Formats: sequence, structure tokens, C-alpha cells
Amino acid sequence: MPKIQARTLRGFRDYLPADMLPRAAMLRRVADVFETFGFAPLETPALEYSEVLLGKYGDEGDKLLYRFRDNGDRDVALRYDLTVPLARVVAMHGGGLTLPFKRYQIAPVWRAEKPGRGRFREFSQCDADIIGAAGAAAEVEILAVGCAILEALGVDDFRIRVNHRGVFDGLLDLLGVTDQDRRATVVRTLDKLDKIGREKVRGLLASEAALGAEAIARVEGFLDLDPRDLSAAAAFFDGQPAALAALTGLGETLDLARDAGLERAIETDLTIARGLDYYTGLIYETALGALPEIGSVMSGGRYDGLMDMFGAPAHPAIGISLGVDRLFAALSELDRVERRETPADALVAVFGDDGFAAAHRLAAELRAGGVNAEVFLGPPGRMKKQFRYADRKGIARVLVCGPDEAARGVVVIKDLRDGSQREVPRPELAAAVSG
Amino acid sequence: MPKIQARTLRGFRDYLPADMLPRAAMLRRVADVFETFGFAPLETPALEYSEVLLGKYGDEGDKLLYRFRDNGDRDVALRYDLTVPLARVVAMHGGGLTLPFKRYQIAPVWRAEKPGRGRFREFSQCDADIIGAAGAAAEVEILAVGCAILEALGVDDFRIRVNHRGVFDGLLDLLGVTDQDRRATVVRTLDKLDKIGREKVRGLLASEAALGAEAIARVEGFLDLDPRDLSAAAAFFDGQPAALAALTGLGETLDLARDAGLERAIETDLTIARGLDYYTGLIYETALGALPEIGSVMSGGRYDGLMDMFGAPAHPAIGISLGVDRLFAALSELDRVERRETPADALVAVFGDDGFAAAHRLAAELRAGGVNAEVFLGPPGRMKKQFRYADRKGIARVLVCGPDEAARGVVVIKDLRDGSQREVPRPELAAAVSG
Repeated sequence: MPKIQARTLRGFRDYLPADMLPRAAMLRRVADVFETFGFAPLETPALEYSEVLLGKYGDEGDKLLYRFRDNGDRDVALRYDLTVPLARVVAMHGGGLTLPFKRYQIAPVWRAEKPGRGRFREFSQCDADIIGAAGAAAEVEILAVGCAILEALGVDDFRIRVNHRGVFDGLLDLLGVTDQDRRATVVRTLDKLDKIGREKVRGLLASEAALGAEAIARVEGFLDLDPRDLSAAAAFFDGQPAALAALTGLGETLDLARDAGLERAIETDLTIARGLDYYTGLIYETALGALPEIGSVMSGGRYDGLMDMFGAPAHPAIGISLGVDRLFAALSELDRVERRETPADALVAVFGDDGFAAAHRLAAELRAGGVNAEVFLGPPGRMKKQFRYADRKGIARVLVCGPDEAARGVVVIKDLRDGSQREVPRPELAAAVSG
Repeated sequence: MPKIQARTLRGFRDYLPADMLPRAAMLRRVADVFETFGFAPLETPALEYSEVLLGKYGDEGDKLLYRFRDNGDRDVALRYDLTVPLARVVAMHGGGLTLPFKRYQIAPVWRAEKPGRGRFREFSQCDADIIGAAGAAAEVEILAVGCAILEALGVDDFRIRVNHRGVFDGLLDLLGVTDQDRRATVVRTLDKLDKIGREKVRGLLASEAALGAEAIARVEGFLDLDPRDLSAAAAFFDGQPAALAALTGLGETLDLARDAGLERAIETDLTIARGLDYYTGLIYETALGALPEIGSVMSGGRYDGLMDMFGAPAHPAIGISLGVDRLFAALSELDRVERRETPADALVAVFGDDGFAAAHRLAAELRAGGVNAEVFLGPPGRMKKQFRYADRKGIARVLVCGPDEAARGVVVIKDLRDGSQREVPRPELAAAVSG
């Protein structure tokens, strides 16, 4: 039989233990913080009826669905995000869910995008949402859980930049752009401001959004405002009730955030746009002080219109989404992840062909004492080989209990990081290894 | 726009919080036990090239693949199990992996099976394997981690029934069945012994495996042996070197398991067959003493031939696989899962329209003290509504700190389970709620 080539699809990846361990530790911590706020975990299927997923992401998004006919000729697709499945759950189980419904979900999604640097066809999303709570309290709660997550991950130099989608709606009204596609184009273009700069945004507003010189001048006037100054913006939007209402709402959220003790982490930025069309209120993204160039690690907003797409009542909704890969890259760069290639704290060496059972019993004592203890499973051979195994695996300590040590009731702890070695009475071993 | 029907595909399911919370807690505990033994987590893509997955499961298995052409016209499929992706990883990363390689993986797999009672098209597998360790030590380690998992889950009345695939090979040799398909049919038929009984097995051996009367009589003779008696089996297989070598190997594993302290949990059962073709040595399954009818909750074996299918060296391999759904059902029946509908330990009530910030600050104190505290996010309205919310969500306690309590520096803990109520000084609140 010809051998088959062992390979993965482009845009897909294996997480070997050295990648998985710090990543899983990060996600566990994130899940724990969500739970301290009362967000409950939800899991939904990877495959859904295509019609459930289609049409929510725009034409561009629909093209990126992994869509096919299953063995029963059903038109199915792999989930593209976690928000539409959430809307489906709310529509299906609505009566059984007590509102506000607060859930988090950490799970892979699939997009048939051109793979590139940092862009994968399978990647994890990490979302929390509150369904069924209007008003500033839910908004502050979402901002607060975001702050708590970054703090739990050891990051304290960050700013959540907040805006209200209604500010952009007001600007579009002011520009006289009524067509939905053109409105979306303007928003998407302004969303690129940080990345491509003012000059290019101006060019795209003319070429892509077909804005005339006067309209572009108005956009420039808006961009010239201090993005943190709500009063200046109110003056700019004088006589525009929608924009003024948005500014008032934003002000209320900021006041409540201050009362809740979050003022240090939050700032207004009226130029934040967020690309997605479905936002209706608060929108925000998060910059790390030490790594501004990495982009937003945590973002989201209010999307009160989305939940009704399956005929469920139009529950108000607000969410937060962590960029898992980007956040992990940032934590790595900030040296905030514990690098481990193995979960084992110690390797228990095996003495001779008959030594496994004794080593296993020693390991069992260590495990009972809270130590992750691996027993060497290769052919015992020379002790040097077992040390080499521990070294290659990144196991920090080798525990040796040969006939001599066993007779004296001690175990030798050899620390591979500094080469040091000490003898410990067996009953104190677990504490000595943990300490 | 016509509303789309909110529905899931047949054979797929949502895990709402009340299902997810105990299930996630169980899987976390399982992962922790794997890690105490030094098994490291691995994650592989959901989608693979079809050729990587095809032909390992037999024709029947291949028919059950979710297979399709992606947007780039590649022939791809959703993973069917976690073992073949592991073999691919070992072949691809072989040089970079230090052997023995011990990994666990807990992840969904997809099979286009006819859905039925307890049978789903998407379900989680939970596997741990040791690649690159021959001999009894690795076998005892796998049995030991299985015991440790069940004990960590609060189950101590269980038996791991072990056998060696070579016993069946010897029986097939004795019967003169040389054709691979017929051999597999005999094994699969004997695997059903527990489920369908002796009479039906006899019938199937004649009809499906085309065994003659003399061969069936020999099978009967084998089944008449005490399934725990290795000496009786050795006498039965007198002059059959393959079967005798298998019995010797099994005896060594059992001796070592005894030395390692596992004798209480393990028993020989020479009728255990395991359906999968790829096993080459030790095979085992696990019965729960209190729920024998639920079937095996944990099984696996040695499969030394599988790792070479991508041209990697034929590393010895042994694994354990937990039946996640079945195990969870068993734990539920044995009352060994903590039922929770929400992670929140307490709901912090909100007093009046301006009460959110104060409630949020109280919740933050609780969270810092290790309590999962949810703040009520609905319109505050009457206190009764907030109590009803907590009750519906299954949150056990409501914490009330109105103007009067705030002035006196106390908080009222109302326990919804027994209706009791007490006042606690604010600095002692977290301890009082945890306790």
C-alpha cells in the first residue's frame, strides 16, 4: 500500500503541547473570569443548516463559509462565528431561558479565507454576550469583565476606547449618504483610519464611497475634533437629534463606568468605527499600552437588532470578543505566559527492569500531594538516558530513588535547570517539589 | 425578509449552561488527571485531507465521513476520531517529538451515522495515548490513569477487564480461519457476546462468519473456559505459540499491575474482543459495578501497527478512550455530578435606578474573595423580580445591600434554598458566601 503523505490543510494547524499548554492555561483563566461574573458556558454544533448561517455576514462573508451537501443532501456549513449560533439558540430555547441570558463560548470557527501571516482558516473565538438587558448597566458590566480578564492575565497597561455607533449614523446623515451599502462603505473606510492613515482614508472616501469634496470636508471636520471631547462633538452635531442622542447615551455609559471604578481603563474615542454592520449602540476596542501596533485585543458592542433574525423577539444584546491569537501573541511578547512543554513537574526515574512498580508508587504519592509526576516509560537502561529524556521534554526535575535511597527512606531531587541536587525524606517529597 | 427557521441538524445538539457546567467540570477533572501523569494536551484541526483520514476505519467507517470539496476543490473531511490525526502528527513532527510521546486530546468528532438514542453525529472523544513505549510498564500506566480518573470522578466500584488480542488470533488460527475479513467478522461477533448472548453469537458465527459445526464447537469450548483463568487457557491453546505468547504477555501485565497496586481494579476476561481491527496486544474495557448495563465507560488497547501508516517508524502505541457521553450519564445516575444551571454563587441585588455601581463594587469585592458574583442587570424594579430571576437561574443566594444596610456596613444574605436570611458585616461577606 503506498504511504499517504502526512500533512495538514493550508490555514490549519496542530497545537503541539508546547503551544497548547500556555494557550489552554490562558483560556482557562479567561473562562474563570467570565464565570466569576456569572456568564455561563454554552456549546453549539460545528455544523449548522446553511440557511441559518447565510446572509448575516454580507456577501463577502457568505463566500467564506465552508458549505457543502451532507450525505443526506442537506445544505450545511461550518459555523463562521459564535454570534449567529447564539441568536439561533435564543430563538429556539427562548422560552426556557431566563433573561438576561449571559453566556460565554470559546470555540473554533471556520472561514475559507486566503491564509496569511496570522490569518487561519480555523481559529478560536472567545465571546461573551448579555442578551435581554438594555441600558448602561449591561454595557459597563461588559467593559468590566474585559478589564478583569486583562488584569487576570497580568496586563494592566491597556485602554478600552469606546464610541457609539449612532455618532457615525449622525455623521452619515449629515453627509446625506442614505444608501445602506454606501453608508457601510464609509464606516468600513473610517474603521481603517488607524491602519492606513488620514490621507488614504480621504482617497477611499472619494473612490469607494463616492463622497464629494464638501462631504469629505465635513468628515475632515469631524476627524479634527478631539476624539475624547463629547461637548465638542455635541457642538459639531448641533441640530442632529440621532447623533446627539448617541452622545448622551455614551456619556451615561461613561459616567456609570466611572462610578463603577473603571475610569482608569476607559477613554472615549469618537473615531472608533468597528467594521460589522450589526452594531447599534456602544462600540469599543482595546489597545495595549506596551504594544499599540498589535491592534485591538478585545472588542465588541451593542447589537440590539440581531437577535430577531429567527423571529425571536428583538432582545437587546451586547457582547465582548477576545482576539485569542492576537491576545496570546501579546501575552507572549509581554512575557506573561508560562512556557511549558509538558505538564509534568518531575520525572520519576526507573531503576532497572523491575523498577517500574516502585517508581509508579512513588509517583502516586506525589500526585496525591498535588505534583504532576511522570514515570519514565522507555527501556530503563542507563540513568543518563532518563535525564536526557527529562531535559528534552522540559521536565525541570528528576527524582531518583534507587535501592540505596529506598533503604534510607529518602529521594534525590535533581534540578535540571541549575544542576543542583538534594536529598529529601520521602514523606516531605511532594512539598519539596511543589515549593 | 422571511424569517429563517431556528433549528439544529438532526444528530447535533446545543449544550445549554445546565448541561455544559457539570460536563465541563467533569472534563476539566479528567484533563487534570491526565496532566498529573504527564500526558500533555494536543489539538489538531477539525478538517483534514480526506486521504489522510480514509481507509483507516474500513469501508463502513469511510461511508460515515463528512467529506466534501472545499472552495479550492480540495477533497477534505471532518475528523472521524482522534487516533488517525495523532498518527499524522507523529509522522509530521516525528523528529521533533521526544519519545515516549504522551498526549491527551478532548475534542469533538463527526460521523454521518443514523442518529438514535444516545447516538449523535457530533460527539466528544477523550483519548490519551503513549507513543513509543513497548512493554508492560506503558500498559500498566494506561490502566493506572484510567483508575485515577474514575476515582477522581468519585467512582470506586469499577472493574477494568483486560485481555490480549493475541488470544483471539490464536483462536482464529485454531479454527483455521485465514481470510482477514472473516477473521474480523469472528472478532466482531464475539465482541457482541455481552450484548446479544451466547445463542445469537453461535448463529452469527455460522451465518456471517461461515464457521462449520466443528469450528463452532471449538469456539464453544473456548467460551466454556473460566475467562479469568490464564492456566486453563494455556492448556486450551497447547501447541499454539502465538496464543501462548499472548497469554504470557498478559500475565506479565497483570503481575506488574499487581505490583503497582492496581489489583483491586483489574480482572482478566479472555472473552473481551474490542471491535477495532487495529489492536495488536492488550485490550480492555471497563464496567461500573453499580451500572453494569450501561456498558464500558473506558476502553482501549495496544495498537503497535497503526503509527506507520504515514511512513513513520512503526512506534509501539497504547491508548485509553473515555466514552464521554456514557460516562457523564453514569455519573449523573450515580449522583456524582454537581448540577448547576449557572456558575454564579450569588446574585447581588440592585437598589433603584442608580444602584448598579454600588452593586458592581460589592460584586468586585466578592470576586476578589473567590465568589462568583452576578449583578442583576434587568431594570431594577421591585426586589421581588430580582429574587425571581435568581430562583429561575438556580442562583442559590441573593445579596441585598440597600441604603440601610450600606449605612450599617452589613449585607443581607438570603438563601433561596431554605429561605433563611442573615446579616453579615461586609468585610466577612466573601467568606460567609463561600462557607
